[in-house]
Amino acid sequence: MTAFVRDQWYVAAYGREVGRELLGRTVLSEPILLYRTEDGRAVAMAERCVHRRFPLSQAPSRLDGDRVVCGYHGFTYGTDGGCVSVPGQRRVPRTARLKTYPVVEQDSFVWVWIGDREPGDTLPPRAPWMDSPGYTVVSGMEPIDGDYGLLVDNLMDLSHETYLHGGYIGTPEVAETPITTEVDDAVGIVHVSRHMDDAECPPFYARSTGIEGRITRRQDIEYHAPCLYVLHSRVAPVGAPGPHPDGSDPHAFHVEVVYGITPSTEKTTYDFWGVARDFALDDQDVTDYLRDSNHTVVMQDVVALNVLQKSLDTEPPGYQELSINIDTGGLAARRVLARMAQERDATQARAMVR
Amino acid sequence: MTAFVRDQWYVAAYGREVGRELLGRTVLSEPILLYRTEDGRAVAMAERCVHRRFPLSQAPSRLDGDRVVCGYHGFTYGTDGGCVSVPGQRRVPRTARLKTYPVVEQDSFVWVWIGDREPGDTLPPRAPWMDSPGYTVVSGMEPIDGDYGLLVDNLMDLSHETYLHGGYIGTPEVAETPITTEVDDAVGIVHVSRHMDDAECPPFYARSTGIEGRITRRQDIEYHAPCLYVLHSRVAPVGAPGPHPDGSDPHAFHVEVVYGITPSTEKTTYDFWGVARDFALDDQDVTDYLRDSNHTVVMQDVVALNVLQKSLDTEPPGYQELSINIDTGGLAARRVLARMAQERDATQARAMVR
Amino acid sequence: MTAFVRDQWYVAAYGREVGRELLGRTVLSEPILLYRTEDGRAVAMAERCVHRRFPLSQAPSRLDGDRVVCGYHGFTYGTDGGCVSVPGQRRVPRTARLKTYPVVEQDSFVWVWIGDREPGDTLPPRAPWMDSPGYTVVSGMEPIDGDYGLLVDNLMDLSHETYLHGGYIGTPEVAETPITTEVDDAVGIVHVSRHMDDAECPPFYARSTGIEGRITRRQDIEYHAPCLYVLHSRVAPVGAPGPHPDGSDPHAFHVEVVYGITPSTEKTTYDFWGVARDFALDDQDVTDYLRDSNHTVVMQDVVALNVLQKSLDTEPPGYQELSINIDTGGLAARRVLARMAQERDATQARAMVR
Repeated sequence: MTAFVRDQWYVAAYGREVGRELLGRTVLSEPILLYRTEDGRAVAMAERCVHRRFPLSQAPSRLDGDRVVCGYHGFTYGTDGGCVSVPGQRRVPRTARLKTYPVVEQDSFVWVWIGDREPGDTLPPRAPWMDSPGYTVVSGMEPIDGDYGLLVDNLMDLSHETYLHGGYIGTPEVAETPITTEVDDAVGIVHVSRHMDDAECPPFYARSTGIEGRITRRQDIEYHAPCLYVLHSRVAPVGAPGPHPDGSDPHAFHVEVVYGITPSTEKTTYDFWGVARDFALDDQDVTDYLRDSNHTVVMQDVVALNVLQKSLDTEPPGYQELSINIDTGGLAARRVLARMAQERDATQARAMVR
Repeated sequence: MTAFVRDQWYVAAYGREVGRELLGRTVLSEPILLYRTEDGRAVAMAERCVHRRFPLSQAPSRLDGDRVVCGYHGFTYGTDGGCVSVPGQRRVPRTARLKTYPVVEQDSFVWVWIGDREPGDTLPPRAPWMDSPGYTVVSGMEPIDGDYGLLVDNLMDLSHETYLHGGYIGTPEVAETPITTEVDDAVGIVHVSRHMDDAECPPFYARSTGIEGRITRRQDIEYHAPCLYVLHSRVAPVGAPGPHPDGSDPHAFHVEVVYGITPSTEKTTYDFWGVARDFALDDQDVTDYLRDSNHTVVMQDVVALNVLQKSLDTEPPGYQELSINIDTGGLAARRVLARMAQERDATQARAMVR
Repeated sequence: MTAFVRDQWYVAAYGREVGRELLGRTVLSEPILLYRTEDGRAVAMAERCVHRRFPLSQAPSRLDGDRVVCGYHGFTYGTDGGCVSVPGQRRVPRTARLKTYPVVEQDSFVWVWIGDREPGDTLPPRAPWMDSPGYTVVSGMEPIDGDYGLLVDNLMDLSHETYLHGGYIGTPEVAETPITTEVDDAVGIVHVSRHMDDAECPPFYARSTGIEGRITRRQDIEYHAPCLYVLHSRVAPVGAPGPHPDGSDPHAFHVEVVYGITPSTEKTTYDFWGVARDFALDDQDVTDYLRDSNHTVVMQDVVALNVLQKSLDTEPPGYQELSINIDTGGLAARRVLARMAQERDATQARAMVR
């Protein structure tokens, strides 16, 4: 399996999912309870009651104001995780306290910090298009029964669009066009770019933009390991003017495809996906089409990765892969993830020695 | 997991479940075949054919008079477990014999003895209300996908009624009222009592007894470890006279809540539940209501314990619990069970040395 | 579990199952891809793409002419397993090659060779009745959730017909009549014969042949370990003349019951079953009846063996069986299989030393 990288921010939910119902999510194998206080603040804490480990997102556990009441024996917790009430006695044991998780709500996501040290000034990476004027967004979340590394592999190598997503977002040119890969080790970002000067326009873009002929198509990936993936997608009719010197680009259509990649357990992953566009902002037909179409594409990935995980689980140990040029992005991502996991573990080991 | 205690009686079935159809139950991981002979005697023996281990409760295995015929190759067994016929030859191998289990039918239950030594004079603990004039009973069995220790914990600490069974049998007073716990180590019985002098009357009792105001409510638990749990429940209107010196108690309503707690495998349990009342004996509406209501309550426990077992199965090893006063009964029961398992194993070890 | 015997032919599919759709089968734990070329030749190769191990029988993987295109990233393979095209680059790595499997199409079956050495002149054992003029055949395949040794045990000891298949093919005489067993170690064939001179005619034969009275019934088994089982079944009215000196046998009805026994994984098996008859060749009613009836019988075995495997999986280690005369065929088969597995492993070890 792909090693978990702790001391990092991860998307635990969309802001819209976190409300006055208790929500349970498991992130890096830690069961986490999410809810929103009466004044609208998202909070996250351990999802298991300190008493007998009952899951606090499980009915009849419930909110009482901003407090969580365990549905089994009524242990009651405040937003700081502290137990404020237990049945049958006045005194609450001092150690009755749930671990809480730092939370940042940003770019439509509820991010939680998973780790042993505090985040300090570290903030989650940005995906501003998910929640900005000038963009219309469709988004969702699909659980995958597979190692998160399989999703990273998938997204870093878009040549699979031609085969797995043919008829939706793939055309022959995607698989045919070489990529360039750059790694910024200092910040843990992998860039993969594929620029197609003269390509077929797949239905995903033809129908949403209205372009009828061939297109120039640019795919510029930024993977902020381990948790956030952004595909800057630019399409324009062949021959249309390029971006202006001031950065504006009125003759092209821009889509920001965002993935929150959140390892749940060793072999399950939350796939938070969003598609933000800068055109046809109020066109509900386009919104509906892109939502349906992208959901179909995501589910093609989910089905394929679930099948792949099952296949790998029955491979004899030490099975081999064969990598080629298209894999430079995915291999770079694996290296970055492995290094981050190692460095973090080494830091942690040093901290424990002190 | 909670250690199994061998050399004990366990409820394998209700008497009504054991008849002229072959019934398979697994008790302390031993697969057991149960049926009733033509003259009405319940018998229990190993449920796996000596030949190729085919399960004898599985069709087309069948009874031929009082004999069991294996559905695979026709090996045929008498009520003493001895094989009386095999296919293709006259001679039956001397070693062709199924282990039989001592059986006692008592208090509506079919008890089987699971162990290595014989029961001798040891009889199962009593729950006479399950089958006595003067009581009307509703009962059933639900399998739980959890360690039997979770059910013992659940039943020893009734403060959970307030939370898990609110609206049925729980009211705030149950959780609020302290308990007293006594352990009789010599006989392996744990007593837990909770006496509420002035309490809300939950629907379970309001609707079945007709009491309209507040009640005095007594819960006196006797847990005969490992196998039988009895809750003596007494409710009466506040201010009603108490029991007479002769033990009669005409102004109160009595319910005996009985549980046969039978470990099936390490993580599955049979939950035999019964509710015997000494009032409204012939009132079918009350009978129907109590059956439905208690079944609902049992299923609330089943769902919670199944969820809890799944949660515990994903906890990292060495997870911690936090116990408070309400847990004295459950902790006492755990200690008694651990001691019984140890003493039995020690006895067994001595017996094997001889 | 029963050891796998490698360097052997196994039935992977019926010829009719292998066509222009990609078919995946797992034989001796090896995932195999089967399809038919445009000119009608059946081919078999490893079912996992060399790139990222995606299963090649999984949509949207597909055939392009005689080539297989992986549905994930488009790696494309020829019938010799060689990769002929990868995305994004001209050069195909030399090591991009799928293992292929020798294939023989014979007697309605597609046989594949599973092993490390080449088959050389070794051909699969024959079951010519499955595809010969003079015979009408019904056949099918059922997967079993059990060790293939359980199916071998089942088929070698037909006394179970009396119990498991009573009312279909079993009568009391099958279980009552002793068998003779012979083993031809040189070729790995076990023969079991049971000759009943005066037996009840079971519905399977009564309805298909029209015989109304009692029959002479001969069951002559040939098990070509590990992969093919044939039951030569002859029924004739009691008193009918026997075979002529020239081998013809016009007064009897002959059924060849054929099983391809193919271990899939350690605890799953493909049960290829066929029933070939030399009478009522064009009678569709008889064909339909025998198909339905034999399918029922096969499913009785499947259900029983699935249950048996589950039972065995929960037996404590070192459980015992008790064998009697009826088991001589099954025990002989086990010995032959164990010897074949050992000899093959020893041969392999010697080959690796060189």
